[in-house]
Amino acid sequence: MRGAVIHGARDVRYEETADPKILEPTDAILRLSATCICGSDLWPYRGIAATKEPTPIGHEYCGIVEEVGRAVTSVKPGQFVIGSFFASDNTCPHCKAGYQTSCEHRQVVVGAQAPMLRVPLADGTLVHTREAPSAELVPSMLAASDVLGTGWFAADAANVKPGKTVVVVGDGAVGLLAVLAAAQMGAERIIAMSRHETRQKLAREFGATDIVSERDDEGIAQIKDLTKGIGADSVLECVGTEASMKQAIGAARPGGYVSYVGVPHGVQLDGQKLFFTHVHLHGGPAPVRRYLPRLIELIENRKIDPGKVFDLTLPLDQVAEGYRAMDERRAIKTLLRL
Amino acid sequence: MRGAVIHGARDVRYEETADPKILEPTDAILRLSATCICGSDLWPYRGIAATKEPTPIGHEYCGIVEEVGRAVTSVKPGQFVIGSFFASDNTCPHCKAGYQTSCEHRQVVVGAQAPMLRVPLADGTLVHTREAPSAELVPSMLAASDVLGTGWFAADAANVKPGKTVVVVGDGAVGLLAVLAAAQMGAERIIAMSRHETRQKLAREFGATDIVSERDDEGIAQIKDLTKGIGADSVLECVGTEASMKQAIGAARPGGYVSYVGVPHGVQLDGQKLFFTHVHLHGGPAPVRRYLPRLIELIENRKIDPGKVFDLTLPLDQVAEGYRAMDERRAIKTLLRL
Repeated sequence: MRGAVIHGARDVRYEETADPKILEPTDAILRLSATCICGSDLWPYRGIAATKEPTPIGHEYCGIVEEVGRAVTSVKPGQFVIGSFFASDNTCPHCKAGYQTSCEHRQVVVGAQAPMLRVPLADGTLVHTREAPSAELVPSMLAASDVLGTGWFAADAANVKPGKTVVVVGDGAVGLLAVLAAAQMGAERIIAMSRHETRQKLAREFGATDIVSERDDEGIAQIKDLTKGIGADSVLECVGTEASMKQAIGAARPGGYVSYVGVPHGVQLDGQKLFFTHVHLHGGPAPVRRYLPRLIELIENRKIDPGKVFDLTLPLDQVAEGYRAMDERRAIKTLLRL
Repeated sequence: MRGAVIHGARDVRYEETADPKILEPTDAILRLSATCICGSDLWPYRGIAATKEPTPIGHEYCGIVEEVGRAVTSVKPGQFVIGSFFASDNTCPHCKAGYQTSCEHRQVVVGAQAPMLRVPLADGTLVHTREAPSAELVPSMLAASDVLGTGWFAADAANVKPGKTVVVVGDGAVGLLAVLAAAQMGAERIIAMSRHETRQKLAREFGATDIVSERDDEGIAQIKDLTKGIGADSVLECVGTEASMKQAIGAARPGGYVSYVGVPHGVQLDGQKLFFTHVHLHGGPAPVRRYLPRLIELIENRKIDPGKVFDLTLPLDQVAEGYRAMDERRAIKTLLRL
């Protein structure tokens, strides 16, 4: 088959790769219905994370089960399934506690920007839908694989509850879907921090009640102004830089909750400063698997439309242009047609 | 009057100081029943926190109200009262949320190692007992002023619940009382990390089920061994150094809770490492005021005996020896008789 392979900084190629095969009896092979490019794929694309050798790339996926290993019992060929970027057994103590991305047997899923994909630990990782979704639901199902689940975790980890005031730092796909999640969880006020008009518009569609375009100390001052000097109950940090983390912590009230769901790059936290803020801090790689059954149900019942984050659709053979568009912030998120 | 004054590193003197007076209509003057030396007093004593000029020291107190300002309504002369190291109005949004140590009008209480003390914001800060406690309850009432309330917050902030496995890092008075708090909150297993026999003994009296004397990576490995490789549900960091913080985070399970209640000194947290641990982190200056009514009730009803942490009692004029004994770890905590 042909799929996306990263060779180095700003060098993603559509080229011949090996067809995936069942390697372990717990594997499944999927024929993907669609795939996409993640904000976190931009770390190696931009050379911030090193690429040592040509590597198949992509970790967001949904599609039809083509084949399963002999130990797989919970999904079968012909079913439409969704999984997350870490395969998990869903039976170990960490999985049972809801932290499937810390599974004792977790494995990364790689090479999803391709027509076919091998998924390890299929029973623990994949969740099937009631039936194969109609074409217009596929983008939302694909979003559930990572960015929706990650935004949902951001809201959950920051203790979003009915009536609360929520700030979302970051207007990428995860931040925008964190807005959607906070709205679903009943937040009264959702302040999206964004300086891009098209993203502000989508944030409002997803439930943002206020937009703050200032950043850093000015952004924090704006949040304080909007909350009578108190700060927000919940702040969802959806970027992963030191500046965004400081902005998030500074925007929270004493005793408030800050979640962080983007892999931190170059973030150092001063213990004493953090101490006197009195915030709760929780985050990590989102345990998307925990939320998948609920997210699939919401999509099937058309209660949410997270697929709106895809504002660029390209055929897979134009994957390189898909990366460029996201790198240059011309696109929020690129869906790749198969 | 005569009280304790710090002049610099390892230089605490018992000397003439000004009698406290009502300065604001919201003040109260207390005649203290007993006072004591805190682990945090050792930071300036050891020169780790600088002392610029001779300063009255001490922030733990309980005693009889001698006089109140004209605006004070909730306590009156003759009542036995307890307060915390930060005075708070107990009416601002942060106080109402239970974070009185982040009160919008907070003021530090200083000079409590003395016979008399001025407490600002008396209505919000002081809690009176049913009646003046008998002499044998005074040490426990004094412990409630800081170390008990701080240990209690450590357990609460780390989500200690019935049936949970808890680790306490630090065997000072706060750590030992964090053990007591975890036991009161119904923890099934309480692992105290301590290498001092007398402190281990007191930890067991307070409810510790296991003792681990190893530190750092070896200590973490021991905790993993004791928890089937999973890690603890709740870890209470009661020291404030980088080593103790790393030990605490390393001992927690993914999705577990780490609290930290000692002012961090030289603690830097790497965002990316913290991210992949999946822990919840919460702490700060303990909002002792939140817990005081409950703690006083437990002491009055003789359900807890936190006063046991005082293993050295000296008259106030020997305050300098009290500091030396704690600095050299000859004493867990020094009570000063008045």
